[in-house]
Amino acid sequence: MADLNVYELLNRKRRGGPLDAREIEMFIDRFTNGDIPEYQMSALLMAIAINGMTTAEMATLTQAMLRSGEQWHLRDRYDFIADKHSTGGVGDKVSLVLSPWVAACGVKIGMLSGRGLGHTGGTLDKLEAIPRFNARLSRDEFERCVEDAGCVISTSTEGIAPADKKMYALRDVTGTVESLPLITASIMSKKLAMGASGLILDVKTGSGAFMRKYQDSKALAQSLIAAAEGSGTRVEALITDMDQPLGVAAGNANEIIETFEVLKGNGPADVEEVTRAQAIRVLVMSNKFDDASARQALDDALRSGRALEQARKWVAAQGGDPKVVDDYGWLAEPTAVVEVKAPRSGFVTAIDTYQAGMFTVDLGAGRKKADDIIDYAAGVMFDRKPGDEVKAGDTIARIQLGETHRDAEELRARFLSFVEFGDAPPEKRPLIHEHLH
Amino acid sequence: MADLNVYELLNRKRRGGPLDAREIEMFIDRFTNGDIPEYQMSALLMAIAINGMTTAEMATLTQAMLRSGEQWHLRDRYDFIADKHSTGGVGDKVSLVLSPWVAACGVKIGMLSGRGLGHTGGTLDKLEAIPRFNARLSRDEFERCVEDAGCVISTSTEGIAPADKKMYALRDVTGTVESLPLITASIMSKKLAMGASGLILDVKTGSGAFMRKYQDSKALAQSLIAAAEGSGTRVEALITDMDQPLGVAAGNANEIIETFEVLKGNGPADVEEVTRAQAIRVLVMSNKFDDASARQALDDALRSGRALEQARKWVAAQGGDPKVVDDYGWLAEPTAVVEVKAPRSGFVTAIDTYQAGMFTVDLGAGRKKADDIIDYAAGVMFDRKPGDEVKAGDTIARIQLGETHRDAEELRARFLSFVEFGDAPPEKRPLIHEHLH
Repeated sequence: MADLNVYELLNRKRRGGPLDAREIEMFIDRFTNGDIPEYQMSALLMAIAINGMTTAEMATLTQAMLRSGEQWHLRDRYDFIADKHSTGGVGDKVSLVLSPWVAACGVKIGMLSGRGLGHTGGTLDKLEAIPRFNARLSRDEFERCVEDAGCVISTSTEGIAPADKKMYALRDVTGTVESLPLITASIMSKKLAMGASGLILDVKTGSGAFMRKYQDSKALAQSLIAAAEGSGTRVEALITDMDQPLGVAAGNANEIIETFEVLKGNGPADVEEVTRAQAIRVLVMSNKFDDASARQALDDALRSGRALEQARKWVAAQGGDPKVVDDYGWLAEPTAVVEVKAPRSGFVTAIDTYQAGMFTVDLGAGRKKADDIIDYAAGVMFDRKPGDEVKAGDTIARIQLGETHRDAEELRARFLSFVEFGDAPPEKRPLIHEHLH
Repeated sequence: MADLNVYELLNRKRRGGPLDAREIEMFIDRFTNGDIPEYQMSALLMAIAINGMTTAEMATLTQAMLRSGEQWHLRDRYDFIADKHSTGGVGDKVSLVLSPWVAACGVKIGMLSGRGLGHTGGTLDKLEAIPRFNARLSRDEFERCVEDAGCVISTSTEGIAPADKKMYALRDVTGTVESLPLITASIMSKKLAMGASGLILDVKTGSGAFMRKYQDSKALAQSLIAAAEGSGTRVEALITDMDQPLGVAAGNANEIIETFEVLKGNGPADVEEVTRAQAIRVLVMSNKFDDASARQALDDALRSGRALEQARKWVAAQGGDPKVVDDYGWLAEPTAVVEVKAPRSGFVTAIDTYQAGMFTVDLGAGRKKADDIIDYAAGVMFDRKPGDEVKAGDTIARIQLGETHRDAEELRARFLSFVEFGDAPPEKRPLIHEHLH
């Protein structure tokens, strides 16, 4: 293979010129094996973060990163297996509801998921609130779960996209996290390494989303779809609302309870609606359903209790005790609950969902440093949400404390600092903004 | 001192936002002492190279880099001491002629200079063509030369601007050399660390200059002047022509000979004119002369032989044998000379001076790698230059070979590849384009 002129390549990217496929592939290979030092990669990351990448460059980068490690090619082992990715939000338990619900309709689904990041909760952290739930599966265990329970969620293994791990660690300390092509390649290299038949992307938008602005969320959705071009994985995206917490619960144990409640038909309507919209896309992508029959199958699975039964199987397949589905006493319980009262009558008009997420993390429900320990019992119940009418003194939220004592008045004051009230309800935002494919 | 949020700082610079003085100072300090790793500096360098810096940021960066090491404050030791910097070119022996000429007029001048870089020759390399000439002076030796000979040129010592050395090494391998604020801070941090009373900048423009385009050369001149604002060193710049080699000789020993010939009044007119223009600025900056009396003093120094006598003193003060000024047999002589003939009658219309410089380097007169050994005898004599009329078969250049045998026909063919001929002379370019201060 011809030699790589790293210096010329970095100069070109600095001036905004494009890199060719061979250059990107060699750069990633050599960085992964240690031949290219971190200072050259960080210069490239900064140049990409500022000057961007063409769609072709980004797709090549994604491919090079996924080829740096194992490729599972799951679509070759099953007639259809779905995957799902969310860009993250507050109270986002969609993956937890979606997995057994879709599996109950006869469509396999598997995810290599992540832990909490910044202000958003992590699907794996929530699952680990279930005692003995094993979210660190080997590839063999992962596939056995797919076969036993029809669904599985596990952490990405060491072998998947090692280039992404090394690059992400560097982005994290060089101010290059916010970059559409780098975000895209990071997400899609891991997703495409698993190699599902179909992938539904839940791209959040609003005050609690990674991308707050609608146009940025849409650009990310389009970029993620473009990066999968020609990969063999069919990709669709829904842009869904994250301008307020999803559902009532934000935390870990409380979100597991809310997940099971949705599967029992008692869940908050927004969680059910957002999950159903994604489940329909998954079922239709499998080619076994059209929109109408997918909707019908999902309704049947919920009403019949088959989705809930699938959740029990799933929990058992990953080492948990399925009794938790029916007896929440197996989960960590709050040591105290601080009620937050409405300071005035009127309407809740807004919750700054980023602040709400950071508040939840600070309670112990998430990590501020990689080695922080999650307090599964800690969290928030958002009993009143934007659009709800309140009377002064009504309970608008319950703050659930875990192992650490907190000052109730301070918590209430901080909570009220990110909630707005007014005389009229805010304009209603749709839960599902757009479907891209 | 408050803590530095490197992550936030890098994010801000990525988005094009300004850094404050404290941030720049702490970043440079911590990088110099090893607390900030290379991968963070290379990310910052790339962000600066792409997004630029404000004049205030750049001045602060320059100050922080110069404060990373020794500051000589020479202006506090002498009533006036001048410094001079050239952005580099082909056949640029101006510093060599300027130093004794200015000293002969009673104005002290000292330079911490560099070696050859890319296609341009290095003043120190040329001086080292003089047997036993010591261009690696300690600070004490440097000052003794100023006192003994009125002029001195030496390599920058280890103690000057260590931040620049570390940053330059990183820029060299991360594609961040071409950046106006980084170039400015690199040059000026070293110049201001010496701390002369006045500094004349010779900013070259044209095909053999670091900045080929006039507007880029002017921007660099303005940037260099701006970075010195408030430093205590008065800075002026001349933008001079480098669209053809300066003088006839390009190399090392041959440029030393040309230097002495200019001081004897026999030198090429262009070298004398460009040097005189800078010498006038230096004499006027000393406040001992106005333009007219400076011009008169310089003419007197040349005609009287005092400038040449000063050169003998200078060579002796730095350890060389002053006989070399009168007997060029002390210098390395070419082992062979390849004459290049005009392939047609007409006019020389252009020399691609970058190519001419690379050709000279390839002969052995410069370095392609840091540890290459200079062949002092190797070089080129440009006997005919743009604007000169030639007849087919006239000798237009003499290629001087040193220790390595070369194929004469190949050399001639390569030489003619960067020289153009035509039926009419090209438009005459001025030697001195602009004076900025």
